[in-house]
Formats: sequence, structure tokens, C-alpha cells
Amino acid sequence: MARSCGVCASGDNYRMRITVLAGGVGASRFLRGLVAAAPDAKITVIGNTADDITLFGLRVCPDLDTVMYTLGGGINADQGWGRADETFSVGEELAAYGAEPSWFTLGDRDFATHILRSQLLASGQPLSAVTRTLCERWRPGVELIPMSDDKIETHVKIKNADMERTVGSTGDGQADLIHFQEWWVRLHAAVPASAIIPVGAAEAAPAPGVLEAIAEADFVLFPPSNPVVSIGPILAVPGIRDAVAAKTVVAVSGIIGGAPVRGMADVCLTTIGVETTAAAVAAHYGAEVINGWLVDEQDKAAADDPALAGIAVRALPLYMRDVPSTAAIAQAAIDLAQELAR
Amino acid sequence: MARSCGVCASGDNYRMRITVLAGGVGASRFLRGLVAAAPDAKITVIGNTADDITLFGLRVCPDLDTVMYTLGGGINADQGWGRADETFSVGEELAAYGAEPSWFTLGDRDFATHILRSQLLASGQPLSAVTRTLCERWRPGVELIPMSDDKIETHVKIKNADMERTVGSTGDGQADLIHFQEWWVRLHAAVPASAIIPVGAAEAAPAPGVLEAIAEADFVLFPPSNPVVSIGPILAVPGIRDAVAAKTVVAVSGIIGGAPVRGMADVCLTTIGVETTAAAVAAHYGAEVINGWLVDEQDKAAADDPALAGIAVRALPLYMRDVPSTAAIAQAAIDLAQELAR
Repeated sequence: MARSCGVCASGDNYRMRITVLAGGVGASRFLRGLVAAAPDAKITVIGNTADDITLFGLRVCPDLDTVMYTLGGGINADQGWGRADETFSVGEELAAYGAEPSWFTLGDRDFATHILRSQLLASGQPLSAVTRTLCERWRPGVELIPMSDDKIETHVKIKNADMERTVGSTGDGQADLIHFQEWWVRLHAAVPASAIIPVGAAEAAPAPGVLEAIAEADFVLFPPSNPVVSIGPILAVPGIRDAVAAKTVVAVSGIIGGAPVRGMADVCLTTIGVETTAAAVAAHYGAEVINGWLVDEQDKAAADDPALAGIAVRALPLYMRDVPSTAAIAQAAIDLAQELAR
Repeated sequence: MARSCGVCASGDNYRMRITVLAGGVGASRFLRGLVAAAPDAKITVIGNTADDITLFGLRVCPDLDTVMYTLGGGINADQGWGRADETFSVGEELAAYGAEPSWFTLGDRDFATHILRSQLLASGQPLSAVTRTLCERWRPGVELIPMSDDKIETHVKIKNADMERTVGSTGDGQADLIHFQEWWVRLHAAVPASAIIPVGAAEAAPAPGVLEAIAEADFVLFPPSNPVVSIGPILAVPGIRDAVAAKTVVAVSGIIGGAPVRGMADVCLTTIGVETTAAAVAAHYGAEVINGWLVDEQDKAAADDPALAGIAVRALPLYMRDVPSTAAIAQAAIDLAQELAR
């Protein structure tokens, strides 16, 4: 049953259009709540591809796959990424061959996705078309579009000279720059970084449908994804930031009580000189991009932060414990967006 | 302990050099017996690559892998091909995606080999170098060299117009020509064929080391491999037939009592107009290529066949039941080769 639109009041036949910029695990959990809160909405998800990496000659898109598997019912729910009922024979064998890298675990079922994706990419299809094909199986209930068909990879600048040997694997020939995944997964972000760079973003174009989905949306949502390495690279694709800034945008804080709910966003924020607080992240996005900011109740003081002038802050329980609690967060985001869009 | 050489009597320090042209399952079983019979010999295996096929964007080399897995201890011994302790998650997932082809079963452990091979090939390494790298893990105890680094694929000409749609998958644009694997595995060789063509062989060159291994060998052995689609393509690579013909060659019949011991060699022989008898296969190879021919005791009449003039025929029990019985066959091949080389 279609809901009436709170923005234009166009009646029962109006289908709310929501566009979401998404990273991986946090975004996927939020999206599950959003789909529950707005089952009749047309939801378009612009997925971060800057975490993508080529492993064993296969193109791996962790964030796109996490969204696809989560909404398609194939996710390993406990860990939030990877496939349920997974086996690990391929990885064991590659390790037995001494194949590198040995620090990135891929399950067999997951490998199938990467094999098929790589085959389709090699046949000349752009990533957006390949993602559509993969989603034909998973039917995630949203339209999932990679932010760009061009190759963008977040690289991390580290100071340790003894890490220089790892640079070869990135293939860019730049000293002390390693792929984000190597820093994140292999080094657990424990090696101090001086910069986080979405390599290729400046020369990239949004994938077909991205700008249209933003322009046509009633509002745009940012899930509690990593602002630096998930939302940041999406906004770094030329054209996307401006398109988003022209819309009503409500973002959900991934920082609660001065710490990331999950992951190591604090290390990323520190690297770019942003405090790990809900208020600092909102100020980092800026009032020119976001109009509304959902924070946890323990961060409600952000509402009075002068640095957040022009951003409507709402405090509510923000831990995504399960689908109902997450749907409540998503509904609050919808409500605030509709209120701000009036 | 090195054996003395029966050919040149060069003494205890002489290491017998044997070069073997090899297909898949039959050759691998024979080789296991040969290694047992001649543990100190330097054995070089020239592997057929005309069965190779690109599946899901990955290069699959069934014959090379069967030799490698069998001699390296990783084979599924019961079926004679594929990996022991195999799992099938990747294939299940590809099927769930609707990926084609669905008729070729690859296990997860096997997939790892194809993933690594494809990655190394894509990096610019020739197949011979890639095969060496893979063998560093398996240590098969022989030197395994693909017959060529150039792409050669056996295609089968079929008459059925309704099979024309499958031609697209071969990528060659020729009507009614399908990849050998499609005919063999998908159609079980049940669709009549009018020709079996090693596409690309005429333009190919032997891989580095192939001609040297033949020239330096004390003798050359043909295992009981399929004479049409296993040994045939190897001999079709320019230069190999002449190099082999210049040596003492002993071949082992894969036909016993008018039927192939394993596989569908009879269909292949019929296609090229050769009777499915041990004598007819020897005549097909011809006295200009083979000097000795081992047949099963039930085929001992071949010794008196005038078509086999110039070929020394020896009859013995030829079923490869286990390693000892196969080692006895291999020893008989060695003995005959040494006798003929004197």
C-alpha cells in the first residue's frame, strides 16, 4: 500500500523516493531498517566503491556486496559481512600455493560473486551493469548503483618506511601509499596514517543513474557509515556533492558517546583532523551538505553546538540492535527529512 | 640411487631421461607407475593443452592439472580427476546466479588453481612459467611442460543445426564448431561429429623446453592416452612430431579388446575413421612415429598384423589396476624402448 507523501501531499499513489549514500556494514543494517520503515518507498542506494580491491585477479567490491547480501538475505548476520553458510576451500588452497595477499579472507560463496563480476567486467560491462546483473539474483528491494563506473581506490599514506615494500601490491608506484584494505584489514589501522586519499575520484564520473537518483529523490539519507572512507569518497566523485547539497539531507551519526558504534572510524577521523564526536562529524559534513543530524540521546548536547548552526539535530536511541529498533531510527530520519523539506 | 643406462652403458652415474607425451587421467595413472618403476629417472612430461577451456573468465587446463594433482598427491583417486576432499560452494553459487556454462563441474579447491593460473597469465606469464609455479607446490616428481604456450583448443564439428547456438560460447564465430569440452562433457560425445580440429595448433610453437626434452630423452613414451584428442594435438604442434619421430618411441595401447579402457576414445577414433582396435591405433600413429607398441594379451594378434610392419609389438597385461601393476607396464615400456634403441 502506497503512503501519502508528507512533502507534496500528492496522495495515496505517490511513492516516496529516498536516495541513500552507503558504505558497508553500518549502511546495510540501516537500510534493512529503512526498508522495514518505508516498504513502499522507491529506495536507491549509491554504494561506495573506494574500498574495492583486486585480489587474485578478481575485482572485489566489499560495500556493494555487503548491501546486496544483507538486503538479499545472504549475509553472515553475526559478522555483518560475507556470506552465510560459508566455506573456505578456495582460500585454503590459495594459501597452500603461497598466493598473496594472505591477509584478506574470502569465502567460497563470496568468491563466486567476484569470479562472475570479474568475468562480466572483462567482457566490457561497466560495474553498474554488472551490479544490476548480480542484484537480479539477490533482489535486495532497493536499486543499488555504484557511485562510479570508474576505478576509485582509497589509499592511505603511512609514514613507516618499512611498509614501503607493501606498496608494490597497490600498483601505483607511489612510496608509502597503501591500499585502504591493506591498512584496515592487514594492519588493523594501527600504523599511523597522514592522509586518506580516494585515488582516481577527481577524474571519475558518477555512474549512470546516480545524479538522477539524487535529483529525483524526495530527500537523501546518510546512514551511520564511516564519514571518511565510506561517505567521503562518494561525495568526492565530481558532481555528487553538489547534487546532494541541492537536496534535503538527513544523516545518522555513527559516533555515539565519542566512539564509533562499530569499526575504526575514530582512526580515520583522527587522520583527517576531525574529533571523534557526533558534533564534530556533523560539522565535518557541514550545513551546506546536511540539513538534519540524528544523534544518540547521550550526544544530545550537539543540538546546542554553535558549529552546527543550520543543521537540525534530533536525539534518539541510535543503536541498531535489531530490525525494529533500526526501523525506528530510519523512521526518525524520514520524519526529520519531511519536516525539513516542507 | 642412479641406475646404469641400458642404452649407452654410461654407468651408475647416468640418469635415464624419459620424455612422455601426456593427456589426463590415463596418462597420470601411467606416470604414477612410471615414477615407481624408474624413481631415479629424469622424467619430462609434455602435457596436452588442447582440452583447455576458459570458464567464468578463468583458464582451466584439465590435463595439466590431472597430471599435477595425481603425481602431487592431490587427486580424487576414485574419479581420476579433480581434487580430493573437494567442496562445491563456488559452483553452487555460480549456478544460483544463472552463470553459464552449467554443465562443467569445478570444485572449490580446483577453482583456486584456475584463479591463480588466470591471475599469473593475466600478469603476462606464459603458461609454461605458470605451470612451473603451480608445480612448486605440488612437486609432482616430473618436469611438467605444456605442449605450447599458445592457445590451442580442440573443436568438434557437429552436424546438428540445433547445436549452432552453442557455438557462440567458443567465440570463434564458426558455425557447427563447438569446444571439445562441450561435446565431451555436455553432450557426452553423443552428437555425431564429422571432424576433430585442434584449432590454433598450426600457428602454435612448442613451449620452451619441449623440443629440448624430446631431443635429450633416451626415449619417448606415449601413455594409454586418447590418441585423437590427447596425443594427437601434441603431435600437431609444429616441430613436435618430427622431434618425436627422430627418437625411439614406445606407446601403450589405451584400447583393450576393441574398447577403450576408459573414456570415449572409440567415438573419437570413429570420427577420424580409425577402427577401435589396438592394431588400428598403432597403424594410426604409424611406424614413422612409434617403434614399439604395448598391447594387452587379448590383443596379441596385433603382432602379426601386416599394417604394423616396423613396429615391435609386445603383449602383456595392460589394465592399470594399481601402482604395482602399472609400474610393471611402465617397466615393460622402458625395457622395449631400451631394446629398440640398441
